[in-house]
Amino acid sequence: MSEKFASEKIKNLRCTMLEKKIDAYIITGGDAHQGEYMADYWRTRQWLSGFTGSSGTVVVTNNEAGLWTDGRYFIQAEQELKGSGITLFKMNEPQVPTYCEWLKANLPDQATISFDGRVLSLSSFKTLKKDLKSKKIFFSYDEDVVGSLWTDRPPMPASPIFAHDVCFAGQTVAQKLSAVREEMTKKQVDIYLVAALDDIAWLTNMRGSDIPKIPVFFSYLLITLNDAYLFIDEQKMTPSLHNHLEGILVCPYDAVFDYIREKSLNKTLMYCPEAISIKLFNSIPAKAESIEDDSIIGKLKAVKNEVEIKNICNASLKEGVVMVKLLRWLSNNVQNSPTETDVQNKISQLRLEQENCLGDSFTTIVAYGKNAAIVHYSPDPGDQIKQDGFLLIDTGGQYLDGTTDISRTIIMGDITDEMRRDFTLVLKSHLALACTKFLQGATGAQLDAIARVPVWAAGMDYKHGTGHGIGFCLSVHEGPYNISMRTSEHKLLAGMLCTNEPGIYKANHYGIRTENVMLVKEIEKTDFGIFLGFELLSLCPIEIKALDMTLLTQEEIDFLNSYHQMVYEKLKPFLNKEEVEWLREATKNISSK
Amino acid sequence: MSEKFASEKIKNLRCTMLEKKIDAYIITGGDAHQGEYMADYWRTRQWLSGFTGSSGTVVVTNNEAGLWTDGRYFIQAEQELKGSGITLFKMNEPQVPTYCEWLKANLPDQATISFDGRVLSLSSFKTLKKDLKSKKIFFSYDEDVVGSLWTDRPPMPASPIFAHDVCFAGQTVAQKLSAVREEMTKKQVDIYLVAALDDIAWLTNMRGSDIPKIPVFFSYLLITLNDAYLFIDEQKMTPSLHNHLEGILVCPYDAVFDYIREKSLNKTLMYCPEAISIKLFNSIPAKAESIEDDSIIGKLKAVKNEVEIKNICNASLKEGVVMVKLLRWLSNNVQNSPTETDVQNKISQLRLEQENCLGDSFTTIVAYGKNAAIVHYSPDPGDQIKQDGFLLIDTGGQYLDGTTDISRTIIMGDITDEMRRDFTLVLKSHLALACTKFLQGATGAQLDAIARVPVWAAGMDYKHGTGHGIGFCLSVHEGPYNISMRTSEHKLLAGMLCTNEPGIYKANHYGIRTENVMLVKEIEKTDFGIFLGFELLSLCPIEIKALDMTLLTQEEIDFLNSYHQMVYEKLKPFLNKEEVEWLREATKNISSK
Repeated sequence: MSEKFASEKIKNLRCTMLEKKIDAYIITGGDAHQGEYMADYWRTRQWLSGFTGSSGTVVVTNNEAGLWTDGRYFIQAEQELKGSGITLFKMNEPQVPTYCEWLKANLPDQATISFDGRVLSLSSFKTLKKDLKSKKIFFSYDEDVVGSLWTDRPPMPASPIFAHDVCFAGQTVAQKLSAVREEMTKKQVDIYLVAALDDIAWLTNMRGSDIPKIPVFFSYLLITLNDAYLFIDEQKMTPSLHNHLEGILVCPYDAVFDYIREKSLNKTLMYCPEAISIKLFNSIPAKAESIEDDSIIGKLKAVKNEVEIKNICNASLKEGVVMVKLLRWLSNNVQNSPTETDVQNKISQLRLEQENCLGDSFTTIVAYGKNAAIVHYSPDPGDQIKQDGFLLIDTGGQYLDGTTDISRTIIMGDITDEMRRDFTLVLKSHLALACTKFLQGATGAQLDAIARVPVWAAGMDYKHGTGHGIGFCLSVHEGPYNISMRTSEHKLLAGMLCTNEPGIYKANHYGIRTENVMLVKEIEKTDFGIFLGFELLSLCPIEIKALDMTLLTQEEIDFLNSYHQMVYEKLKPFLNKEEVEWLREATKNISSK
Repeated sequence: MSEKFASEKIKNLRCTMLEKKIDAYIITGGDAHQGEYMADYWRTRQWLSGFTGSSGTVVVTNNEAGLWTDGRYFIQAEQELKGSGITLFKMNEPQVPTYCEWLKANLPDQATISFDGRVLSLSSFKTLKKDLKSKKIFFSYDEDVVGSLWTDRPPMPASPIFAHDVCFAGQTVAQKLSAVREEMTKKQVDIYLVAALDDIAWLTNMRGSDIPKIPVFFSYLLITLNDAYLFIDEQKMTPSLHNHLEGILVCPYDAVFDYIREKSLNKTLMYCPEAISIKLFNSIPAKAESIEDDSIIGKLKAVKNEVEIKNICNASLKEGVVMVKLLRWLSNNVQNSPTETDVQNKISQLRLEQENCLGDSFTTIVAYGKNAAIVHYSPDPGDQIKQDGFLLIDTGGQYLDGTTDISRTIIMGDITDEMRRDFTLVLKSHLALACTKFLQGATGAQLDAIARVPVWAAGMDYKHGTGHGIGFCLSVHEGPYNISMRTSEHKLLAGMLCTNEPGIYKANHYGIRTENVMLVKEIEKTDFGIFLGFELLSLCPIEIKALDMTLLTQEEIDFLNSYHQMVYEKLKPFLNKEEVEWLREATKNISSK
């Protein structure tokens, strides 16, 4: 995307804005389903501005233009915006206004703000409206103005859909519908509107590939107490899929707006304000009672059923095989100085050799040396891995039998005492969480603090959550719960999956992260309540050569040894002789000094 | 209060309700300032029902009456309500409705609900209104109907007031007013309405004794950007107090309603919805802009200034002397089998011998044996302490130089291995919190989880917060922050005081709690942020004879030894020879087995 193009496109946009009497145009850059990853069709922000980051908002007025993005993208945005005439606003830096504050300061009273109403979520619109309340703004969002200028826009994806067999999903569509309707009845809801693509894929036991990395398909879903309607490009639906849907009626994708208008008249309609667009919201008739609430499906799918749990253990086994093959390949090939991208490609290739694998669950991070200090780093084809310091790998796969996510920091050569200490502290934080037994009712924010104790004790911290929920053959980041400092009222329950990924990052030096997926399990019920704990599902050796043994307690050493023994025994049957040899060495017992 | 009286009073109340066309009358049982302790004048719930617990709501309809109270009071309420015709509703038990749900189910549409509008808080009223929305209820709250039946009602207290010298408070009234106005300006507030008595006592640097245990006085306060008005029984104000107030105008207590009506016309008025009554709220004119927010004073007074910190250290020293004298007296007198009440009185007497002491900061808990398993136990004059098991003491004092709170569990004779283990686990939880270094930004809910790790690991829990904020010569429980499982967004900051009081309670057997007051301190500033930690202020030996040494780490042993050494050295100068001898033995070094 050349910078010349960006400034020309903005000039064109301003002409259209003048015609249509628009004072400011906002591109939040999401899609119609408020997802984390996006199809090319929806990349209007990138098309207009040239900025390729995953998060940011562009605002264009008649004489100014700005991009608001966060710390992960400051350097990248500065480079990509050069010559575009777009000013970079560094979000969360002191004295930098939010785009709402900036609009408030720069627009006259009664100005017109426009955006694509299919894309802006109801909750974002509420914030915008509230922040600009005093300006008496007119909002215009029936038209996709930038889209109308984008002549070579890619089409909406029309990738095929397939049924996700009940041997993977563990519950039929009818069972899931019945569980949803039970919750709807409790909440006195007549109609439940679902726009989140992973919620729809879960309920319908179908998967697709409309979006990179997440096996979902574009659609909306309306569930009443008796019927259900799936709004989808009907060409994607084969006759066998119609049967599979067990009575869910298939309707055209764009028909959702009319159906909401008709079906919810004099009814109680529930939706999640973060997941629905303002356009969808506006199709709710005045004569409907609206209930805004957390996603019913979100809460149901967060607790994995027994079949899913059995399956994810199997997917974790395959992922362990991928990791061991990769690490052994790397130890054999480090003298050839492979690039970060070489390693990234090798992982994808090894993964696709596994049964029932659909591909990666996110863009693999392979970060050598100081690159690993950038938390959301993307591998560089020019950056060679040398025989020195740390290499950080954060990767995951989409399998029909589950979604995986794992990070390991490995030694490529010499490390300093400071690196050794930091690596050991990260492991201590990881184990503090993994070994915790906690009363049912504890929230992710509370468990996050327990994990941070060892890193905090050394005056350090990591500026990301300790962990996140994870989908089942769905999104690698799945809510509603997480394990993070941000206050969340969501409590962890038995059957939930989450990652455990503390780290230490030293800018321009190195980055360390150790991550496993864990299953929340009931451990015991006593007079004091139900106690939960974690089971480590990921299977891959942790770099014992990087440990400072003087910092570990006997309990920590015992735990690590028994984890390594399990890794060895579970993976051994799936490896060749040389790989088994490598694994035996990597998982050998350690003892205190 | 005899049960016959209660049922007669309810009959009288029903007659008045019939006259006034009231379908349900609610007595939440608080006072006009939403405080924790109450003057007798406000004990309408107790007068009507005979229930003497500190928390509960009575609802009377034309043919039914109910008391809603929590688990602390189930047994007591059952006894006290006998024959009254009042049904006990056990709050938070399965299938038990809230009083709002019960009213919804039992009242006809368009019924009239009445209560004393001086007492019900705005936030409680909002909940009531919301829960009963569908019933189109008429609310009547201009009259204190129960009060009008209470012929021998005690008068409103008119206790004397005194100035709290700046050598204790550390800041003058003018300095405090200026800090409040700075916050008001930031929030664009013209007038700030204060009803919380401890907030008013803090700002005016005055103390009184209108309420048991908390040295406050009945009053309201209105602060504008230029003026301030104190609404108070003017008889309490001496000429020197008028001078002390540095320009705050003194007005009659009941004039507050008219002043709000007049002063806030066309202004922006701020208040805390939990602290103001619905009557106070209704005096805000329609032509005022209302802002509901956390108390400005609450946030300011939570962070203690340097003078207050110096003073509270001194108060803690005096309290340490009280505790050591008590514990030694107890060890000398246990063969006489003193009652719990004897010990309670002995503490109060020893405390009053200390300089600048105003009395106890709450009713001392002295709980022997199985009594200690009841968390909110009140000592029984019939319960003798024997030479066996544990005795739990939880006590605190009001001093001009600070408010204290301390708990110790002491050995009276033999204890079982289980008791020894539990005592040690409580200490481990106490130390886990006391020794934690944490990133500024951590909330009380997060620190609470860190404290619970050792107790949870053994499948146990305590059903109360790990700690609470504490006032300065004010309320022993002071917000807005606490250290508890309940999600709170309030972060701990350097200069705050809090208690650290984990416990283990085994019904019908024993109860253990170890509590110290701690000061939040900045420990270091690193590349990763500002790190905070705690300093133990309370000075009293912890029962080393009750420890299971095999459960303690070397770090824990070292910490305990150095704490005990500090206790010994600081208290020694204030004790006689025998007491010093006793203390030396109680604080002697321990070592791992």
